[in-house]
Amino acid sequence: MKIGVLGTGIVGPTIAAKLAALGHEVAIGTRDVPSLMARTELGMGQKEPFSAWIAKNPAIRVAEFSEAAAHGEIVFNATSGARSMEALGQAGADNLSGKIIVDLGNPLDFSRGMPPSLTVCNTDSLGEQIQRAFPDARVVKTLNTVNALIMVNPQQVAGGDHHVFVSGNDAGAKAEVTSILKDWFGWRHVVDLGDITSARAAEMYLSIWVQIFASMGTTMFNIRIVT
Amino acid sequence: MKIGVLGTGIVGPTIAAKLAALGHEVAIGTRDVPSLMARTELGMGQKEPFSAWIAKNPAIRVAEFSEAAAHGEIVFNATSGARSMEALGQAGADNLSGKIIVDLGNPLDFSRGMPPSLTVCNTDSLGEQIQRAFPDARVVKTLNTVNALIMVNPQQVAGGDHHVFVSGNDAGAKAEVTSILKDWFGWRHVVDLGDITSARAAEMYLSIWVQIFASMGTTMFNIRIVT
Repeated sequence: MKIGVLGTGIVGPTIAAKLAALGHEVAIGTRDVPSLMARTELGMGQKEPFSAWIAKNPAIRVAEFSEAAAHGEIVFNATSGARSMEALGQAGADNLSGKIIVDLGNPLDFSRGMPPSLTVCNTDSLGEQIQRAFPDARVVKTLNTVNALIMVNPQQVAGGDHHVFVSGNDAGAKAEVTSILKDWFGWRHVVDLGDITSARAAEMYLSIWVQIFASMGTTMFNIRIVT
Repeated sequence: MKIGVLGTGIVGPTIAAKLAALGHEVAIGTRDVPSLMARTELGMGQKEPFSAWIAKNPAIRVAEFSEAAAHGEIVFNATSGARSMEALGQAGADNLSGKIIVDLGNPLDFSRGMPPSLTVCNTDSLGEQIQRAFPDARVVKTLNTVNALIMVNPQQVAGGDHHVFVSGNDAGAKAEVTSILKDWFGWRHVVDLGDITSARAAEMYLSIWVQIFASMGTTMFNIRIVT
């Protein structure tokens, strides 16, 4: 399948590499390709500059947001949540129309220091903002509740016996994304939280995720729902 | 120990009954005793009016908020979160000074319908509001992430192998509450989320708790942190 992945921080390359390893034709999107390739400073959690990473992943095409979105039959939003609306605007409504947008973003606001707050929450969410801005796309919020490594390899934690969530208005899109999570990434437990307004819940969960991270000293954790 | 429990919905009586069963002298507080005793309509989740419940629990004293707070060496806030500030104001700063306030409240706002939003979140929390309003009290936020039955009997779910959280500025108060959770209520895993600002995290978790409840059709669940 042709897949567009928007975002070149930690999450985008992790998702792109996994999809490429599964045999898909992946284009990874950024705002400006030459400046991305020239960048040498490392972002939060990055181990190497993007240029070094992409040199080891030659099957993945690097493109502007709009070209990556146009390429994808399905598009992953892996941009930082606070900038996702701008990035998707650059991707362009025409290039997203009719497509599933798998929204992985967390609208974290680090401007007040740590722990981050959210730029939007409680009565709205990034997932809803995206769905409203691109009414012809089918937004499914998922995977934002775990780190990038766990997103594509949940077996790394507790043998995969833990939960991930999906939110979205389109039942068919949610079913398709659930299949991607299970069949491609190896998730065993996918909980349908409801329509796209339930993205508020998945995004507000980040607040306790950050505190658990601070308490435990690792991001390699997830939650299992027990009854 | 003499304990004050503020609130006569589902949570207050459940906590009060557990504490009384453990041999403590419990006063349960309400705004107005005669109107509470006269009430016949049932609140959300209530199986019987308060008057019927208290008749079966004669060891528990029913009192105004102020008297229940004065009685307690430690005070549990089990009022509905949206009204907790008012209830604690009626309890009175003098009656709370120097004492641990175990804050179980969730500042849920049902005015927009279901699912509820929060009256305060993201950059503030009910726990912080209480600590600011009663600087001489030692507020510990806990147990608000599970239903009342699980609060006092965590073994009912997955043999007790799941997590609860504490937030607060006073390390001694958190240690004391952690002992109450473990030794009195039977909790095995208590995670210290940090100072009282981390109550934001515990309260914002309610958003996903509500959606998981809606998805699973039961409130008899909790989360286990897995690594």
